[in-house]
Amino acid sequence: MSTPPKLPDSGPRVEEIPEGDDRLRLVCPDCGFIHYDNPKMVVGAVVKWRDRVLLCRRAIPPRLGYWTLPAGYLELNEAPQEGAMREAWEEAYARIEIRSLLAVYSIPRLSQVQLIYRATLTDDAIRPGVESQAVGLFAWEEIPWSEIAFPTVHWALHHDRELGETEVFEPRTNPEGASDLP
Amino acid sequence: MSTPPKLPDSGPRVEEIPEGDDRLRLVCPDCGFIHYDNPKMVVGAVVKWRDRVLLCRRAIPPRLGYWTLPAGYLELNEAPQEGAMREAWEEAYARIEIRSLLAVYSIPRLSQVQLIYRATLTDDAIRPGVESQAVGLFAWEEIPWSEIAFPTVHWALHHDRELGETEVFEPRTNPEGASDLP
Repeated sequence: MSTPPKLPDSGPRVEEIPEGDDRLRLVCPDCGFIHYDNPKMVVGAVVKWRDRVLLCRRAIPPRLGYWTLPAGYLELNEAPQEGAMREAWEEAYARIEIRSLLAVYSIPRLSQVQLIYRATLTDDAIRPGVESQAVGLFAWEEIPWSEIAFPTVHWALHHDRELGETEVFEPRTNPEGASDLP
Repeated sequence: MSTPPKLPDSGPRVEEIPEGDDRLRLVCPDCGFIHYDNPKMVVGAVVKWRDRVLLCRRAIPPRLGYWTLPAGYLELNEAPQEGAMREAWEEAYARIEIRSLLAVYSIPRLSQVQLIYRATLTDDAIRPGVESQAVGLFAWEEIPWSEIAFPTVHWALHHDRELGETEVFEPRTNPEGASDLP
């Protein structure tokens, strides 16, 4: 049996359809502030150094201790490619060059859209940022497949592998029938 | 001289860097609610019926009375293609089939990322939705170029035109040096 989620006791916490709207939004019963929540955009990259790929071992939940691509939420006033470069720097002190858009994955369950780019490391001086326990460059057969943090990381690694040297392609989307649950 | 924007007198309205964060966020001084604002995703489509393109005349601000592509904010729990189909229906009662991702435009100034698809009308029974004054199918030389609502609409129409019958291509991005101001 699962515990019902605890309702916050301050801030927007009551579901209402605001006037002129057609969807439920969280409203603050104390001051009337309407929280228009939107889907979130995650930006990241499959970063290559020759035939090796950059992975980061997560130092924060969720999936602490598991390996992931450098990726994270796009910030305000940021272009997606800039965000992917910033995340590579923050998580692995990696300087990268964006090559193309590998994939647009969507996880409606989490109201999340991921833009994953193909990128190249400009030098291999990488080290863990504060959100990473470790970082590494893995050949395909060395990738710790059983310790990958999220399904989208599997998808992106395989999509990048399948494309090989192909330069012009349609960005990949969620593999058919694939579950987005870890 | 411009008037300073009026501060709201309730809800999150004070800029602070929350503990453990590294950016300014709007906080409610009454209850402590932190408003983590994120970039917003716009989804839309260049919708074709034979060699004609679907445009909608806006019945709402901004750019009321100007012509635009069917497009709007992605909603929670929605995949981008679904959102583009929903917007085509809401603004023009258009049933569409998504073909490919035409472009990813970003407008950091507005914290906005646009995913614009190429799509085909499945029948030409279109009519204005509540947010449109009029809808129409325009041949290239009939497009009301001086009455286009947003620069991204110009970009998408030209990118779609340049691609012609090409089926496999990298999604287009902001044209170099182009201004995103209407």
